[in-house]
Amino acid sequence: MTLLVQKYGGTSVATIDRIKLVAEKVRGAKQAGYDLVVVVSAMAGETNRLLALAHEISEIPDEREKDVLLASGEQVSVALFSLALKELGQPSRSFLGHQVRIETDNAYGKARIRNIDSTKILQSLQAGEVVVVAGFQGVDEDENITTLGRGGSDTSAVALAAFLNAGACEIYTDVEGVFTTDPGICADARKLARISYDEMIELASTGAKVLEIRSVEFAKNFAVPVHVRSTFSNVEGTWLVREDETMEDVLVSGVSYDKNEVKITLLRVPDRPGLAAQIFGPIADAHIVVDMIIQNASADGTTDLTFTVSKGDYKRALSIVEKTAPAIAAKGVNVDTDIAKVSVVGVGMRTHAGVAAKMFQVLAEEGVNIEMISTSEIKISVVIAAKYTELAVRVLHDAFIGKQGTV
Amino acid sequence: MTLLVQKYGGTSVATIDRIKLVAEKVRGAKQAGYDLVVVVSAMAGETNRLLALAHEISEIPDEREKDVLLASGEQVSVALFSLALKELGQPSRSFLGHQVRIETDNAYGKARIRNIDSTKILQSLQAGEVVVVAGFQGVDEDENITTLGRGGSDTSAVALAAFLNAGACEIYTDVEGVFTTDPGICADARKLARISYDEMIELASTGAKVLEIRSVEFAKNFAVPVHVRSTFSNVEGTWLVREDETMEDVLVSGVSYDKNEVKITLLRVPDRPGLAAQIFGPIADAHIVVDMIIQNASADGTTDLTFTVSKGDYKRALSIVEKTAPAIAAKGVNVDTDIAKVSVVGVGMRTHAGVAAKMFQVLAEEGVNIEMISTSEIKISVVIAAKYTELAVRVLHDAFIGKQGTV
Repeated sequence: MTLLVQKYGGTSVATIDRIKLVAEKVRGAKQAGYDLVVVVSAMAGETNRLLALAHEISEIPDEREKDVLLASGEQVSVALFSLALKELGQPSRSFLGHQVRIETDNAYGKARIRNIDSTKILQSLQAGEVVVVAGFQGVDEDENITTLGRGGSDTSAVALAAFLNAGACEIYTDVEGVFTTDPGICADARKLARISYDEMIELASTGAKVLEIRSVEFAKNFAVPVHVRSTFSNVEGTWLVREDETMEDVLVSGVSYDKNEVKITLLRVPDRPGLAAQIFGPIADAHIVVDMIIQNASADGTTDLTFTVSKGDYKRALSIVEKTAPAIAAKGVNVDTDIAKVSVVGVGMRTHAGVAAKMFQVLAEEGVNIEMISTSEIKISVVIAAKYTELAVRVLHDAFIGKQGTV
Repeated sequence: MTLLVQKYGGTSVATIDRIKLVAEKVRGAKQAGYDLVVVVSAMAGETNRLLALAHEISEIPDEREKDVLLASGEQVSVALFSLALKELGQPSRSFLGHQVRIETDNAYGKARIRNIDSTKILQSLQAGEVVVVAGFQGVDEDENITTLGRGGSDTSAVALAAFLNAGACEIYTDVEGVFTTDPGICADARKLARISYDEMIELASTGAKVLEIRSVEFAKNFAVPVHVRSTFSNVEGTWLVREDETMEDVLVSGVSYDKNEVKITLLRVPDRPGLAAQIFGPIADAHIVVDMIIQNASADGTTDLTFTVSKGDYKRALSIVEKTAPAIAAKGVNVDTDIAKVSVVGVGMRTHAGVAAKMFQVLAEEGVNIEMISTSEIKISVVIAAKYTELAVRVLHDAFIGKQGTV
C-alpha cells in the first residue's frame, strides 16, 4: 500500500468539531487504500496561550523549559485526534516526539531533526492503525524535549515522509495552495499549480507563511513530493517539485513580505578586521538567526552596522549586542521595530537581467524608500517602512506578475 | 544535605501568581539548606478541561490516548514552575515521567509505579538545581505514557521520597492537615497532629480527599515520614507515622464520606458456585476497582448481587455487567447513582468493641436507612442515600469524637 504522510495545522484542529471532520477525511483516505501517518499541530491559539503564561513569569523564558511547555500543545492534539479516529471505528495510535523517536540536536526552540526511528510507526501501520504523530517536537540525545520552531510541524511531516519513504507528503492548511502573493493584500493573487523547491524556500524565507522553510529544504534534499492543499476542500493545491526548464520562462513566481523582523543598528563602530565576528559570534552562540546584514563604511574610519532578526529573538539579540557595544567602542545601538521586508522570487531571474532595477524603479515611483537590500540568485529583498508593505506588494505583483491567467 | 520531597497540588499552582508564590517558598527551603525535589500537579481545573474535550469526542475515551491527553497538564505545570524558580535566580530543571524515568505497569488511568531511575535527579541535585518532577505520570516499559489516577501526584511524591531515600515527604495542599472530618460539613472538625499510616489508608479509601490512598500505602511500605500541610501558611500540619500504643486510646480518629460511588445491582441471579467470578472477572480485566460487594440469598434459589464502583468507572462497569447479565440469567440490572458511603476509622477499634453497634444506633435515631455495610479491623463503612450524608457525618462525629480539644 502507498504510504501518505498528511499534516494538519492548528486551524484544522482548532475545535473538537474540526478534529472530527478531519478524522473523517483521514478515515476516508485509509479506506481508499492508503497507509497513513498523520502529523498534527497544536490547536490554533494554544501555543500562544502557553507562551503568554511563560511570559507572565519571565520576559525571556528559559529555552529548555519553554520547549517542555510548548510541546504539551501537540500532545493534546494527537491524543484528541487519535480518540476521534477510534470513535469512528478506525484503529489509531498517537506518538510523541520521544516515543517515535524523533531525535534532534539540542537547539531549544529551533532544533533540527537528526534521525527518526521508524520501528514503532511501521509496527503500528502493519497493525492497520492510522499513526498520529505530534508535530513540532523531538528529543535530544539526552531525552530533553526540543521544539522545531514555529511551523515546525511542516518539518516533522516532511521529515517523516523522507525517513519513511512515503509516496507523498500532503500539507493541509486553511488556504488552497501557494499563491503568487497574499490574496488578503492583492486581489490579483493566483494559486500556483506547481513551484520549484528553491522558489518555495525563498518565498518561505521571505515571509510566505504557507510552509516552513526547513520543511522545504528537507523536501528538496530527500526529493519528497509535497502537495500543499486545503483541509476544507478537495481541490488540487500546489505541488512542490524539482525545477524543470519551463519554469525559467516565468520571471517572478511570487511576491512575499515579512513584518516579523526587527532592525538593529550599531552606530559609528571603529572599523577594523574581526569586528563582525565579535558582534555576531555571541548572537550565533545563542542560536539566534540573523537575516540581513549591511555595513556602511564612513570616511572617518567608523561604520554603521545594521542587521535584522525575528521579533521573537530581538530582545535576546539586543541584550547581547548591548553587552558587545562598549567592547567594540560603538557610539550606541538603535532599534527599529517598524519595518517590513518585501521580496520578489523566481527561478527566471537566473537567466533574465534587470529584475532588481525594475523593482527599485517601481518602488521609487511610489515614493517608497529602500532601507536595506539583499539578493540571491533567484530573489531580491528590500527592507522598507512597515506602513508601505501592502502598497509595495501590490505594485510589485502588478509589475511582475500582473493579471494574466493561472501561473 | 537533607533531601526533601515537596508536593504541590493543583490549587497551589492554579495561577501564575500562586506559582510564583510557591516558587519563593521552595527557594526559601533551598536557601535554608535542603536539597529539593518538587512534584507538581496540573493547574487546578486543567485535568477537567482536558477530560471534557475527550468526552466531546467519545463517551468512553480510549484509555491510552486519555493518558497522553491528561499527562499534558502536569507537563505545563513543571515547565512553568521551573521557569518561576529560574526567574528568581534559583537553578532548576523539570523532568517528565519518561525523562526521570518513572516506570509503571500498563494499567492506563491507574498505573502503579514499579521503579524510579534516580540517576538524572541526583545529577541535577548535585548541580545545585531544584528538581521539578511532573506528578501523576509515568511510562510503561514500551514508552507508552501512563497516569496514576486522580490524586496520583501524591503517589509520585511519596514514591520519589522512597526511591531517593528522602528525609521527609511534604504534601502541600489547601488545607492545614488531616482533620477528624470535613470542616465544611462539621464545625467541630479538628486537625490531627499525627495519624497512623493504617488509619490514613482507611480514611483515604473511604473518601477523605487530603491524600491519595496509594501514596499512603507507599509511605507505609517504605516508612516514609509524610507531613501534610498548607501551602499558604507555615503552621505544622499532620504527620503520618507508624502506629504506637498511645494511638489505641482513641476509639475513632476520623469520620469520612464519599459521594463518588455508584451502586450496581444484578437482580435475582440463580445462585450457584462460580457466579461472582463470572461477574467480577471481566470487570477486573478492565482494571475497574470494585469497592463494596454484598450478596443477599433468597429462599427461591436466586440472589441479588450488589456492588459499588467509582463514578468514573461506572459506565464501563455497567456496559460489562450488561453483557454478563444474560449469560448468568439475571433478571435485570439496577443502578443507583444517588448514594454516599460514610465511614468511621480508628485503630482503637481493634481493642474496643461496640463501635459498630453505636454507629448503627446513632444513624437509626436520625431515621437514616443503611443500604450496605462493610467493615475492616479499624473501619466501619455504611452506604446510605446521598441526601443524608452531611447529617450522618455530623451525628457520628458528635457521638465518637465530640467537642474535646486537639486530637
